[in-house]
Amino acid sequence: MSFRFSVRTQDSVTSARTGELILPHGIVQTPVFMPVGTLGTVKAMSPEELENIGFDIILGNTYHLYLRPGDELIKNAGGLHSFVNWNGNMLTDSGGFQVMSLQKFRKITEDGIEFQSHIDGSSHLFSPERVMEIEHNLGADIIMVLDECAPYPCTKRYAKESADMSLRWAERCKIKHEQLGGEQSLFGIVQGSIYDDLREENAKELISIDFPGFAIGGLAVGENKEDMLRIVNLMDRVLPKEKPRYLMGVGTPLDLLENIERGVDMFDCVMPTRHARNGQAFTRDGRLTVRNGNYKEDFRPIQDDCSCYACRNFSRAYIRHLINVKEILGVRLTTLHNLTFYNTLIKEIREAINNNSFSEYKNNFIERYTRSDEGNIR
Amino acid sequence: MSFRFSVRTQDSVTSARTGELILPHGIVQTPVFMPVGTLGTVKAMSPEELENIGFDIILGNTYHLYLRPGDELIKNAGGLHSFVNWNGNMLTDSGGFQVMSLQKFRKITEDGIEFQSHIDGSSHLFSPERVMEIEHNLGADIIMVLDECAPYPCTKRYAKESADMSLRWAERCKIKHEQLGGEQSLFGIVQGSIYDDLREENAKELISIDFPGFAIGGLAVGENKEDMLRIVNLMDRVLPKEKPRYLMGVGTPLDLLENIERGVDMFDCVMPTRHARNGQAFTRDGRLTVRNGNYKEDFRPIQDDCSCYACRNFSRAYIRHLINVKEILGVRLTTLHNLTFYNTLIKEIREAINNNSFSEYKNNFIERYTRSDEGNIR
Repeated sequence: MSFRFSVRTQDSVTSARTGELILPHGIVQTPVFMPVGTLGTVKAMSPEELENIGFDIILGNTYHLYLRPGDELIKNAGGLHSFVNWNGNMLTDSGGFQVMSLQKFRKITEDGIEFQSHIDGSSHLFSPERVMEIEHNLGADIIMVLDECAPYPCTKRYAKESADMSLRWAERCKIKHEQLGGEQSLFGIVQGSIYDDLREENAKELISIDFPGFAIGGLAVGENKEDMLRIVNLMDRVLPKEKPRYLMGVGTPLDLLENIERGVDMFDCVMPTRHARNGQAFTRDGRLTVRNGNYKEDFRPIQDDCSCYACRNFSRAYIRHLINVKEILGVRLTTLHNLTFYNTLIKEIREAINNNSFSEYKNNFIERYTRSDEGNIR
Repeated sequence: MSFRFSVRTQDSVTSARTGELILPHGIVQTPVFMPVGTLGTVKAMSPEELENIGFDIILGNTYHLYLRPGDELIKNAGGLHSFVNWNGNMLTDSGGFQVMSLQKFRKITEDGIEFQSHIDGSSHLFSPERVMEIEHNLGADIIMVLDECAPYPCTKRYAKESADMSLRWAERCKIKHEQLGGEQSLFGIVQGSIYDDLREENAKELISIDFPGFAIGGLAVGENKEDMLRIVNLMDRVLPKEKPRYLMGVGTPLDLLENIERGVDMFDCVMPTRHARNGQAFTRDGRLTVRNGNYKEDFRPIQDDCSCYACRNFSRAYIRHLINVKEILGVRLTTLHNLTFYNTLIKEIREAINNNSFSEYKNNFIERYTRSDEGNIR
């Protein structure tokens, strides 16, 4: 078995924990933040840069890669790792979320999700079996079951029917996955919207199917933070301690802290890369909209004590100029900085947990991060 | 004096020569190709990447930098080198060519060039004196006189009047430049369109004003190759052997070979970077349109024997995919490759001249480069 997870340190006060995830392409220290490489590239970065920052697992989006360049082509290239030249670990989602968020025309039945390509309008079916074939062609180390990410808000009835169907899909995925064989690990995804009883029921059923890891899906889709944190608290209670928990699509630096406190081990989010393209940089003092006029003649780095290439070599004024005139280097530098910020944060959190000072670290971080005026969206 | 040029090896058959240009930011081996960093960044590249490729001089465009972020801001940042974090040498053009090519509304008088910003329509005047102030604020190692780049085609009368005015501007530039002082070196620019007698007269006058280096301007603007090469031959005869010759805005790999043969020492061109953004890669076998369908499942590198990061790590199929889905990494990789190609070519040319085998090198290069079908635009 090329998958093993072990908890290293359990925080004495909260559910925060560090652990080690052993995967075919190396060891991943948890909690871990995984940058998103939708189309086989973490936008604006080279794999060398990601490795230098210290990432050892990145995401790919099945939906996007299936459409372009196609999973068969990637299989012929020797798989996704080889195609994109990434020697670390990879995780692919199932495409379910992407279909929901990108498609106007889709039809969900027990069979799966019928949809039209957002590129050429062609028709496609993502059944649980088909998605397993695609994810096996891509060859990521961790792959995800097909699920329906229920819209928010949705009625309890819709949420239940959707979560039940996702559960049946999860079973079908597991069967197909085992038929296909190989070294990839298939994670289940808990659904049930913001309804506690549905979530608990769904999680228990999923646990009984048995997966090496569990994702919490259907959050960060518009619900308020209390709902998110309550569901994660519940999951912390229900999901097995000895298996990794992955909170999909989350989130801000503060989200990371709050959810790590609630026992989450894995995160992915487009936030650091997307904000970077929008000229927003994460700093210890909150978010900095580097394209703002304030920074026109500000010759300090984005963040004084940051060790990234951007902060070691360039000023806010220069990066602002680059972003304003739409030069690629601007986006490269903000992306590099934001990803460095996220990876530094998660590394420091791991150290704090190992030193039994997680709550202190969290409080200090939040105190400074929320002190300034600009960091109003956390 | 922080400028010195010496010819190292003079080819025994042609006018090709190698030399050394000593500038405030280090030694430049000639012939040299200078990548264009219009807005203070060679598009898609970091200064570290340019240095790793081996470039030791890059361009900035005065017109663009004057408008955004402004030469005063750059001066406050400690000059262009410091602002963009480039430790090698820099050259700025005078903005004359940019005004001609980018402006619909401009008025040329003896005073200088009045124009409206292509960004906000505001009115500006580039007089020879003003341009010297701006180029001094930017602080490049080599700066260029303000000239009018006559359109092609133009009447002989227009060409003469224009070249004569450019000459008077050159004198005014030199006076202002000397008043302003400092370590920068001011190059003159020969004009005269494709009229041999005008060119010769213009060059001689410019020589008598006395500049440490001479550029050949007003070529690569639509004239045919024979005209270009004839003018460069003429310049080779007229311009002093002991001073560097800079052919502005040129060109293709074959242009470099032909003009080095005719005694040119310095080149700049957007071609490697611009074609890269368009999905075209330079190879020893001609240009390769990597976004073409042919390369969909071509898992070979762009060029087998290339040592650049793109060719060492990625396939044509992957780069094609990136370019097709408009991912920044695609443009980064083709740009890195094309600039590596240009710098490798010019380095090999220098070695060939030093080994007295320039003509052999040139013939072999052209034979292979033009053999394949795809390299039809050289």
